[in-house]
Amino acid sequence: MQINNDTEAMALALEWAAKGMYITAPNPRVGCVIVRDDEVIGAGHTQPAGQAHAEIQALRDAAARGNDVRGATAYVTLEPCSHYGRTPPCSKALVEAGLGRVVAAMGDPNPLVAGRGMAQLEAAGIATASGLLANEAHELNIGFFSRMRRGRPWVRLKIAASLDGMTALENGESQWITGPEARQDGHAWRARACVILTGIGTVKADDPQLTVRGIDTPRQPRRVIVDSRLEIALDAKILQGAPCWIVGAVPDADKEARLRAAGHEVILLANNAGKVDLPALMLELGRREINEVHVEAGSKLNASLVREGCVDELLVYLAPSLIGSGQGMFALPPLTRLADKIALRFHDVAMVGADLRIVARLHNEEPT
Amino acid sequence: MQINNDTEAMALALEWAAKGMYITAPNPRVGCVIVRDDEVIGAGHTQPAGQAHAEIQALRDAAARGNDVRGATAYVTLEPCSHYGRTPPCSKALVEAGLGRVVAAMGDPNPLVAGRGMAQLEAAGIATASGLLANEAHELNIGFFSRMRRGRPWVRLKIAASLDGMTALENGESQWITGPEARQDGHAWRARACVILTGIGTVKADDPQLTVRGIDTPRQPRRVIVDSRLEIALDAKILQGAPCWIVGAVPDADKEARLRAAGHEVILLANNAGKVDLPALMLELGRREINEVHVEAGSKLNASLVREGCVDELLVYLAPSLIGSGQGMFALPPLTRLADKIALRFHDVAMVGADLRIVARLHNEEPT
Repeated sequence: MQINNDTEAMALALEWAAKGMYITAPNPRVGCVIVRDDEVIGAGHTQPAGQAHAEIQALRDAAARGNDVRGATAYVTLEPCSHYGRTPPCSKALVEAGLGRVVAAMGDPNPLVAGRGMAQLEAAGIATASGLLANEAHELNIGFFSRMRRGRPWVRLKIAASLDGMTALENGESQWITGPEARQDGHAWRARACVILTGIGTVKADDPQLTVRGIDTPRQPRRVIVDSRLEIALDAKILQGAPCWIVGAVPDADKEARLRAAGHEVILLANNAGKVDLPALMLELGRREINEVHVEAGSKLNASLVREGCVDELLVYLAPSLIGSGQGMFALPPLTRLADKIALRFHDVAMVGADLRIVARLHNEEPT
Repeated sequence: MQINNDTEAMALALEWAAKGMYITAPNPRVGCVIVRDDEVIGAGHTQPAGQAHAEIQALRDAAARGNDVRGATAYVTLEPCSHYGRTPPCSKALVEAGLGRVVAAMGDPNPLVAGRGMAQLEAAGIATASGLLANEAHELNIGFFSRMRRGRPWVRLKIAASLDGMTALENGESQWITGPEARQDGHAWRARACVILTGIGTVKADDPQLTVRGIDTPRQPRRVIVDSRLEIALDAKILQGAPCWIVGAVPDADKEARLRAAGHEVILLANNAGKVDLPALMLELGRREINEVHVEAGSKLNASLVREGCVDELLVYLAPSLIGSGQGMFALPPLTRLADKIALRFHDVAMVGADLRIVARLHNEEPT
């Protein structure tokens, strides 16, 4: 493959990074390509935690193909790590391999790295550059960056509704408002998350599994249920598979014991109103190295999450239909002034099958 | 301007047709370009009713520029008319001018033309073709075609809402949910309509003018108010300018007389429920040569229009905001089965400023 300039090389490194979409968590999705004389001589992406990072994979690929990397340029979508974590530092490996130049899309926000990776390369006489396609690299790891900078995951709230904003009939029927392509697309968004979060209302009403189906992924996200009074039935479908985290507010020793006996974890996080403290939950998920949270809940939990500042992004599928009267997206209390509406920014709009997919953001996000 | 093929010439004719957007009603918006030796030697578009059609304008333009049209090709976005209406037939003019070939985007659905225009050209030895960029030509005159084929106008219902489908707060506040670019865009859609239709509920709540503002148009659409019991106040802003049509269901000789004395027309069209018969109103508007109706109403009239099959297209502006609880788009009764939802098709999606504009259609429309 002919590479004509730095931007093309970095775009290719981003493609490699995306191959790690479902496997690298809690580590970021990183890609690396090594280029010499306008030819790609090695490429790779980060493996599951504890295994090789992208740079090591690319060096191994070059070696396996008999290519000499000395003096070549490595393009990485994130600053190479400089510390001994689960693996040895990549900056050291790049120096030892004799690379001539390293271009990074952006610096690593991890306080254990944060510029030291590039500094080590420069100290070894390797030319460096940073900031190429930084926006794209940031988007790919928006959850990792959120956790590193804010101590909490990036929270994406998914909604499927009719064009007039109804997520279900008044009688609760909601399957299916959107079409098969949108439902499949929704599973791909589930798959990239570390956690799928729902509420006891949805568990009672729909008894969902909230697993990833129809996507080729080796990893199922952890299911987390917000259930202040620990009301969840032990035979709920969501409790039948992998262990869940059940987040309550009101202690119930007996129910806690039964949930734990069934293999699940109970986390108690109460606010002053006796409900689950949602901001505290997000910090707890950050401590547990959760990068991206995918919410599929009802209008009550949706509203609480938005009102308490816990939602970063809406993933809204609008179907080409009208329902008129039914259940809305957010059960927020009425406003008295339009100026108090919750402000969003449309980030991405696309057709998915016959439906419209809108990604809207509540918080500003910066790649630097 | 160099013309390389028939499609380029017809695309240019469509650009000319669009120049007549606000002036040709009840006639269709038609454009014509005359091409010889790959050069445009004449161009024009239909003038206000009673004045010259596009073909005559293009012939005059060629003559004014000293160009000889004999043997040249005329591209028209609609089959040339063949009958004496308010003006003499264009087919006759094209024959007399000695054109060598005529290409039409589509046939005229007017039963007074319907193929006769092309037939007359062929009988005079002029080569003809039809069907080039027919979809585009149809879109430009979707209201004219609706009236010719169905006897009723194309009805476009405009809504401005938050992403979660709220058009106003519970207390009625709705100014402004969408941004200035979307509001300006909305005035351009008003301007192309023959009628702006609203209901007595909106007149009482918002006291709007429903005029076109900020758009360079020589013509204001007729305002039509659905007002079953003729409740409208004589000092309502909408009644202060040009004459309106007030559509009632319950006779009230005194109120009718006062409205008429103020220059307005009262039309009584009752259904069995003592409300305005909306489908009958659409047929009446068709008889009055109304091509496009632009609806700006509240959730009750919106719902009645949709339920009674009177809406062809939704023009929805979604703002990047959440309101949560408020007034919805359509006050339809609750459904018991999701299969009974009203089906749409997304026709066009675009960003307008910070807002999203969605054009969705309820009825299939065909260009042929």
